[in-house]
Amino acid sequence: MSPQYWGFIKDPLYGYIRITEIEKRIVDTQPVQRLRRIRQLSGAEYAYPAANHTRFEHVLGTMYLAGILSQSLPIGLSDQEIQRIRLAALLHDVGHAPFSHLFEPLLAKYLGKTHEDMTFWITTESELSSALRADGFDSEEIGKLAVGRLGDLHRHFLDQIIRSSVDVDKMDFIVRDSYHTGAGYGYVDIFRLIYTMDILDGTLAVDVTAIPTLETFLLARLESFRAIYFHRVTRAVQIMILKALEQAKDDLGIERIKTPETYLALDDYVVWSTLKRYKKSRGIIQDIEQRKLLKCAYERTFFAKDELFTSVLTNEAVRKQIEGEIATKAKVASEDVSIDVPSLPSVPYHYAVEIEPMDIPVFFKTKSGEKVSQRLTELSKVVDVLKVFMNVIRVYTKESYRNEVMKAAETVFGKPQLHDQVSY
Amino acid sequence: MSPQYWGFIKDPLYGYIRITEIEKRIVDTQPVQRLRRIRQLSGAEYAYPAANHTRFEHVLGTMYLAGILSQSLPIGLSDQEIQRIRLAALLHDVGHAPFSHLFEPLLAKYLGKTHEDMTFWITTESELSSALRADGFDSEEIGKLAVGRLGDLHRHFLDQIIRSSVDVDKMDFIVRDSYHTGAGYGYVDIFRLIYTMDILDGTLAVDVTAIPTLETFLLARLESFRAIYFHRVTRAVQIMILKALEQAKDDLGIERIKTPETYLALDDYVVWSTLKRYKKSRGIIQDIEQRKLLKCAYERTFFAKDELFTSVLTNEAVRKQIEGEIATKAKVASEDVSIDVPSLPSVPYHYAVEIEPMDIPVFFKTKSGEKVSQRLTELSKVVDVLKVFMNVIRVYTKESYRNEVMKAAETVFGKPQLHDQVSY
Amino acid sequence: MSPQYWGFIKDPLYGYIRITEIEKRIVDTQPVQRLRRIRQLSGAEYAYPAANHTRFEHVLGTMYLAGILSQSLPIGLSDQEIQRIRLAALLHDVGHAPFSHLFEPLLAKYLGKTHEDMTFWITTESELSSALRADGFDSEEIGKLAVGRLGDLHRHFLDQIIRSSVDVDKMDFIVRDSYHTGAGYGYVDIFRLIYTMDILDGTLAVDVTAIPTLETFLLARLESFRAIYFHRVTRAVQIMILKALEQAKDDLGIERIKTPETYLALDDYVVWSTLKRYKKSRGIIQDIEQRKLLKCAYERTFFAKDELFTSVLTNEAVRKQIEGEIATKAKVASEDVSIDVPSLPSVPYHYAVEIEPMDIPVFFKTKSGEKVSQRLTELSKVVDVLKVFMNVIRVYTKESYRNEVMKAAETVFGKPQLHDQVSY
Amino acid sequence: MSPQYWGFIKDPLYGYIRITEIEKRIVDTQPVQRLRRIRQLSGAEYAYPAANHTRFEHVLGTMYLAGILSQSLPIGLSDQEIQRIRLAALLHDVGHAPFSHLFEPLLAKYLGKTHEDMTFWITTESELSSALRADGFDSEEIGKLAVGRLGDLHRHFLDQIIRSSVDVDKMDFIVRDSYHTGAGYGYVDIFRLIYTMDILDGTLAVDVTAIPTLETFLLARLESFRAIYFHRVTRAVQIMILKALEQAKDDLGIERIKTPETYLALDDYVVWSTLKRYKKSRGIIQDIEQRKLLKCAYERTFFAKDELFTSVLTNEAVRKQIEGEIATKAKVASEDVSIDVPSLPSVPYHYAVEIEPMDIPVFFKTKSGEKVSQRLTELSKVVDVLKVFMNVIRVYTKESYRNEVMKAAETVFGKPQLHDQVSY
Repeated sequence: MSPQYWGFIKDPLYGYIRITEIEKRIVDTQPVQRLRRIRQLSGAEYAYPAANHTRFEHVLGTMYLAGILSQSLPIGLSDQEIQRIRLAALLHDVGHAPFSHLFEPLLAKYLGKTHEDMTFWITTESELSSALRADGFDSEEIGKLAVGRLGDLHRHFLDQIIRSSVDVDKMDFIVRDSYHTGAGYGYVDIFRLIYTMDILDGTLAVDVTAIPTLETFLLARLESFRAIYFHRVTRAVQIMILKALEQAKDDLGIERIKTPETYLALDDYVVWSTLKRYKKSRGIIQDIEQRKLLKCAYERTFFAKDELFTSVLTNEAVRKQIEGEIATKAKVASEDVSIDVPSLPSVPYHYAVEIEPMDIPVFFKTKSGEKVSQRLTELSKVVDVLKVFMNVIRVYTKESYRNEVMKAAETVFGKPQLHDQVSY
Repeated sequence: MSPQYWGFIKDPLYGYIRITEIEKRIVDTQPVQRLRRIRQLSGAEYAYPAANHTRFEHVLGTMYLAGILSQSLPIGLSDQEIQRIRLAALLHDVGHAPFSHLFEPLLAKYLGKTHEDMTFWITTESELSSALRADGFDSEEIGKLAVGRLGDLHRHFLDQIIRSSVDVDKMDFIVRDSYHTGAGYGYVDIFRLIYTMDILDGTLAVDVTAIPTLETFLLARLESFRAIYFHRVTRAVQIMILKALEQAKDDLGIERIKTPETYLALDDYVVWSTLKRYKKSRGIIQDIEQRKLLKCAYERTFFAKDELFTSVLTNEAVRKQIEGEIATKAKVASEDVSIDVPSLPSVPYHYAVEIEPMDIPVFFKTKSGEKVSQRLTELSKVVDVLKVFMNVIRVYTKESYRNEVMKAAETVFGKPQLHDQVSY
Repeated sequence: MSPQYWGFIKDPLYGYIRITEIEKRIVDTQPVQRLRRIRQLSGAEYAYPAANHTRFEHVLGTMYLAGILSQSLPIGLSDQEIQRIRLAALLHDVGHAPFSHLFEPLLAKYLGKTHEDMTFWITTESELSSALRADGFDSEEIGKLAVGRLGDLHRHFLDQIIRSSVDVDKMDFIVRDSYHTGAGYGYVDIFRLIYTMDILDGTLAVDVTAIPTLETFLLARLESFRAIYFHRVTRAVQIMILKALEQAKDDLGIERIKTPETYLALDDYVVWSTLKRYKKSRGIIQDIEQRKLLKCAYERTFFAKDELFTSVLTNEAVRKQIEGEIATKAKVASEDVSIDVPSLPSVPYHYAVEIEPMDIPVFFKTKSGEKVSQRLTELSKVVDVLKVFMNVIRVYTKESYRNEVMKAAETVFGKPQLHDQVSY
Repeated sequence: MSPQYWGFIKDPLYGYIRITEIEKRIVDTQPVQRLRRIRQLSGAEYAYPAANHTRFEHVLGTMYLAGILSQSLPIGLSDQEIQRIRLAALLHDVGHAPFSHLFEPLLAKYLGKTHEDMTFWITTESELSSALRADGFDSEEIGKLAVGRLGDLHRHFLDQIIRSSVDVDKMDFIVRDSYHTGAGYGYVDIFRLIYTMDILDGTLAVDVTAIPTLETFLLARLESFRAIYFHRVTRAVQIMILKALEQAKDDLGIERIKTPETYLALDDYVVWSTLKRYKKSRGIIQDIEQRKLLKCAYERTFFAKDELFTSVLTNEAVRKQIEGEIATKAKVASEDVSIDVPSLPSVPYHYAVEIEPMDIPVFFKTKSGEKVSQRLTELSKVVDVLKVFMNVIRVYTKESYRNEVMKAAETVFGKPQLHDQVSY
């Protein structure tokens, strides 16, 4: 039976997104509607004023691309399977906490969860679960697929459509973030990627003919990382919000979250207002609202070989220790020094670990139609160089302490080279 | 002395917006930064998911266009005058309450103010005033200019740049709303309007050669009105928020606003969270968060000749009376019937009265360079027909009462014709 | 059997145009490939330098839209029927002569044909005919459909998809001409039109919900007409080329065209080079190549009631007579005066007669799903006013005779009003 | 004295290009107007149907960017200097032969000239020279500047604005070629490059903060090279046209070109028509017009270390020798084998040698405002890897000989690896 369509949703990127009656019912649940109040790029709006888009339009876009890709794959997926994939794509971000990735270290620390865990939890135990079942879907299955952990041994591609180095999630946010920031790095021809994708031994793979697009896509991700997600100002705001969240964690009741509903009651609006009311966090929020932001006093880039060093810094105790050391040398309070490392749990940078693009399978189609697997890094020197890139360490402090903290950080981490700058 | 530039701000519409040191200082004040948390189109995001842009990027864009127009006018404005105009454009919306125009009837009812009054008040009595004075500006003058009430008898155009039928405010929001909604009506060549503008007897005027663009601009405004601002779903959400605001007005303390700071403490985040906490308004907000929206049970279009009738409906007492009458006939509670009229004070539609485009002066330049004033409506039949357009009356109710309320409304207002539909 | 796809063609407007093996074979024939050397807008590049697009990309785009519309119509057209419609759309312009519409009066005068006649002739008697038959198509049927003259009494919509007031041909050129000229009037949401179309009594009809888009579409056509197709400079170049063609008609052998192949041997390149070599036409082409263009000495707009007058001027003998009269009064040679009227056979304006939009059927869908036919002009005052618009008369001459000819034309046609200007 | 503006030209990329009275006079000369009939990307339209843009709009765009950059450079160039730079940018391509770079080997072989030589010649000895002098310009100086050979020892940047690795010429064609092909690689934020440029020791340099944009720009150039300029189909058409030109060189009278006027009489229209008429070249042109193109039978990529090998192949005698050898082995006629190497004089690839980006000076601005020169390749691993990229060798033949020629080529050049494919 062919799908029953409800109608179209207008999207500035893709024009008309056609949705089914089933999708309409799921879109209208509170867990999905809540994403309207969760920003896609918390903090980035301080570098790019127009970056106010939310997870809501992102999940609609991701669902759209998941549908296009599923229909385009030359393996004849059924309407029912495509519907499942689209629903999983729609739900892939329902587990996000307020301020998206920013909240994640608190989830990890106080609940021992990632946002993907929350996505699965909400899909299977909130009103979403009954809504899915009412339409004949297995909410466990959709929940696993939504976070790319279905683990179908013969059909890895099901997970990879939503979660891999070239998944529809990344495709959507690369172009969407570029559209709303105006940053100008993400105008990637993602439809060329989609239309050249195929399945190789159960795995999603890209035709070698799309390597130029793949290179452009990977460079766009890197530049978006530098120019948007890891922009100095973006990170300054994120560090400040994270500090405020830590201060207000009791008032927010993070540790008392026992049901999906308690968790889903939190969104950007509620948390921001709470942080503003609560005495311990109020000052930080006021500073942000008056644009008195932390300043970057020190910045240094590390390459692959320094991974060990970086991973040491991701240990919160070690980091606190060094922050204290820098503070002492600079004669400022310990809390006025913040070390920021991309993959650092305390101020997470979700995308960092995924910059590694080696796991993108590519294939060459011979004249006889046989698909031969290839190593991308052998075919593309650009991809090869992009894969070792980039670890950053920064030290933030208040504007008035900038010089002292810079000098202190230099005695600890060494004097940075000019080329150590990442974003500007 | 030529202006001291601070740097560039990236905007997705205009690329690089260059700002001066002075502008940077004003942008960084709390009253301007607050606009980051005031949506440009409250409610429209329920019809167009990506419509999450804020007043903040709009005022930056308006400042940019004000600068381009000021420099382009062939009357040699000085750098200092251009700076004044740009600052006024930057500040033209600082008086907006949460949810932009939606809040306006409460301002009117409880404070006797419009958002323009608030803009002037904030510009002259908040920290903005001292910031402006510190840079040598007369905050009273900037405040008047920001709301288009400078009233310079010989230079009307100063007010008209910011407030007239073809002002830079409207130019910015027409293209910006289109960009973020994806609605597809607003891709107007506003730079053609700007580059063909001139001053005629102290008044801003458009060269007749730009009439095709002017027609396109005015039609784009009308279609944006129908498709975005007055979309049935947009209005449903707005009516619900307005009801919630009325319920919670004591908790919000609207009547107790005595200082700019009290007023500026309100933004979308704070008010939304308050409405959600407060018992009387909680139910409505929960309904919105679960997308249980009011439904339009009746809709009818009126043309110019019916203005009298419309204006009667804008009287709150009359409207309440008729809502009660319809409710009685439909056997539902009076509060479950909402009459919605564009120019109605209780659910304001700010732009409605400005659809009237007759006051756009146009001129023809003779071979000798003389500019001869023309009547636009004589030159353009399209403009002529656009000017009488459009008054709408709608009756909203809960989904389950739709049929009864429809029938009751028909006995009161008459059976609508098919062509009475406005948005879809 | 589902269609065999050959691959994708990249189009700057629609992204990827997927074509079938059959379409690939037809695209690669000489009659279709020849369209690469026939400009879409001959003459307009002198007003808009980038307007160098050709009929070739236009027919690909038209085929694409025809496919989208055919698939979207809720009447379940078969793959075979959709293929037929796409092929007809692909071929709808193969009959165009060099310089597109510009050549048309010569076709009429010396061969008694229109470009549609030529399209049918070429489709049924050139190599296209055998190519179509080889793939199992009836070339007569495709030929008729390509020019909208299939005349299927129960399925008028087949003709209307390709030839009506809102056909895919017009949709494509409105957005394409805007894209390549940059003129800024044609950013119409044509996909909204397509997705809301349906069949009513065998006729293509537009849902009333798309009226705002329809108004935008019709205004875009009007403004494109004024700003591009009937731009003074565009017309000046067109008049000059037409004069050159008349001079060189023997050398071009227009009257000796007996086979499709002779006709297809003519393209912009060949004809331009011939005009440049041939003594009688050389001067005109040299003038164009040095941008010494005719100037418009007189311009006047006429409305519906003056149709009679306009139609008199379309009579070549009458026009020649009046040109002579003006020339005598201005004391210049008769050949130095050119009267230009949009619908004039000697300098045709193809689109003019189609500005009439009354024949666009619209319908309203009731709750029970019934479609009720509506009169568009009753529903839309904008459409109503657009329909009576616009007839223009202009008199062109050499730059140095401008004043004399202006005065002479004024004694004949009356002094124009300022609002008589059309393009600028 | 401030510049006298004539008006605006509409460009689809930059909107309104404002031009001076002087520029208007130069634009209207025959040498500039002729560029309307010289395609920017001859041959590429067979891979991208909409790639029909010409040198004319490119030189207008280049002039525009030259103006923006000149005004933006913080060294206070005078209006007169900016006018000179804009004029040079406008004229930088007047020396192009028909089919742009395609014709170049014939210029080299029969006249011993490059298109830059021709640009200088035409600027100084055609009507352009007197037009420039009439407005007070030194045509020799403009001519040198137009080809980047002014050689001002203290102001290298004057040449570099128009001719260097990040000149305005390349900026314009990267975005323009992308716009018209739709290829999707060239949406580069060129204005970020322009606004961050400065002068360092008389040399044009880019601020390190723009390195992400620089990387994007350089990758865009590389991908445009692979996907557009060196697309297999593009090159097939180019090889065919070049063969036709060689055949028809006597008829075209290339060796008899003695005056600028003789040269300027050649354009795409004239040459195409001539090739079509002339017996020796007719067959090739007919093949193109029926899309019977040469096919690539062999392709291999070479990296930097193979430069020697590549340069051997650029020797025409050597190449002819090897073509003969392959032909003999494949048992086909020698003329049916074409070896194609990017930097090969006989089928030139102008951009190839410039892929080398090492000469882009970058600088870091210290807090004290001092600009410190940097090595780009040390700062950017991406740039470092892009610089050694890419040499290609291909062997083309007729479709029916493909297999034999492939095998023969493999015995000569070795069996290619899968990763040897460049475009697809």
